[in-house]
Amino acid sequence: MTQPPTLDNQTGHDNNPFLHLIHSPAIILVEPQLGENIGTAARAMANFGLRDLRIVNPRDGWPSEKAFKASANAYPVIENARIFTSIEEAIADLQFICATTARPRDMVKQILSPETATETMFHKASENQTIGILFGREKSGLTNDDISLADAIVIAPVDPTCASLNLAQMVLLMGYEWRKQLDPATLGRKTQFDGPAKEGTELKTNRPANKKELVNLFQHLKKELEYAGFLRSVEKTPQMMRNVRNMIIRMQPTDQDVRTLRGMIASLVKGPHDSGQK
Amino acid sequence: MTQPPTLDNQTGHDNNPFLHLIHSPAIILVEPQLGENIGTAARAMANFGLRDLRIVNPRDGWPSEKAFKASANAYPVIENARIFTSIEEAIADLQFICATTARPRDMVKQILSPETATETMFHKASENQTIGILFGREKSGLTNDDISLADAIVIAPVDPTCASLNLAQMVLLMGYEWRKQLDPATLGRKTQFDGPAKEGTELKTNRPANKKELVNLFQHLKKELEYAGFLRSVEKTPQMMRNVRNMIIRMQPTDQDVRTLRGMIASLVKGPHDSGQK
Repeated sequence: MTQPPTLDNQTGHDNNPFLHLIHSPAIILVEPQLGENIGTAARAMANFGLRDLRIVNPRDGWPSEKAFKASANAYPVIENARIFTSIEEAIADLQFICATTARPRDMVKQILSPETATETMFHKASENQTIGILFGREKSGLTNDDISLADAIVIAPVDPTCASLNLAQMVLLMGYEWRKQLDPATLGRKTQFDGPAKEGTELKTNRPANKKELVNLFQHLKKELEYAGFLRSVEKTPQMMRNVRNMIIRMQPTDQDVRTLRGMIASLVKGPHDSGQK
Repeated sequence: MTQPPTLDNQTGHDNNPFLHLIHSPAIILVEPQLGENIGTAARAMANFGLRDLRIVNPRDGWPSEKAFKASANAYPVIENARIFTSIEEAIADLQFICATTARPRDMVKQILSPETATETMFHKASENQTIGILFGREKSGLTNDDISLADAIVIAPVDPTCASLNLAQMVLLMGYEWRKQLDPATLGRKTQFDGPAKEGTELKTNRPANKKELVNLFQHLKKELEYAGFLRSVEKTPQMMRNVRNMIIRMQPTDQDVRTLRGMIASLVKGPHDSGQK
């Protein structure tokens, strides 16, 4: 299994130099029918840091109040959207294009998954190529003519019995996979890139307990368990205490955890009778 | 770059043996507010072949006409959804749980990406463990108490300036990553994968405790700590018990470990006076 990404990689990429060096893909919506769908697609773009929205012949015109509302505050994406009257115009400046489709077409064209498509696009972008992703009409998708303009086809690995994703969902998956390409943790797997200061895989407010604290805890617990008669079998005691040590070590306790555990043990042993005395 | 998956991997997994051998994660929606959101979440599940929907206290009751409509034909998921009155009940039979959150919490808990979380879950499932994913309320997410029942936290790598994903979108991303785990192309990349459920290859005397056993342990411990006067501060009790739950869950106890811990607690409480009686 791969190393889990660090906290920083999960929550923010502000200090990720790749965000500023790599051109993100343009998102090209071909003849979308409903403003709401344009809005939710824009929102999904914003979730993953995509900015370049291009719309070919939106059926209900532009600007669209419905798109604006449905974008749930992703206004910059909507406001900066560019409208085109043909796909050819919309992709004129782009060098590598993927076309999303729900099913393969009868064409000789490379078929990629969202992951391999974004890997390929990232590779192109890192060579300063301009890239984009085509998304079709809600009902009918992209025509074969549309697709013929693309360098590759992208199909999501959906369940064949329930295969249709809506426009915003497909934009979401592509945006998500693109974002993963920019993640230093992902980059680390591919290119040995070390990324920014790795601060461990967990949020730690306390330091891990040291072995001395753990040994003291084990001794405290053993003494009380012996006193209570829990460790009556002399032969079984070593195995039992090994199990207990393994359990507690698996817990990866902090120094505070060790204090809590020792407090609990002392309290359970003392019982309620003395509890008012302190 | 990896080899692009073949067409078969992209469009259908019907002949993928892993689909039938591996238990998919349960999707647990905690106190969802709107039926529409339950419906779109169910649809996202169906898109990626997930079937086991569990709902804790849906605000607007159940069954929900709105959920049914919004599911866009994912009726089997909606019709087979199970309703629970507490998270503890909803996860009682599960052995490994991830909690989806928008931000890290002040807890010592492993933080995973959707990808690493599903890798981990796939690994657990291939050892025949039962797995699930918790999703919080639309407005407020999961509470720290909810999260303390989970083995790990999942955070999607969103843009920090536009970080919120809706319920169905988060379910979509998790379902998508889960599906990728089952994809033969993905499996091909995993060098360590030996296939599911090989009996006899590993000496396993114990199974991981399920959440019901853990909840019973927490309740037992809490009762005794209260009785002993350890939990005297009413305000601090919830935080203290969260810490204890987190510690024990990090321990990844087996069913035998839970019995050992409960035996230790009982013994410490009873003390030496009765030890000669048996």
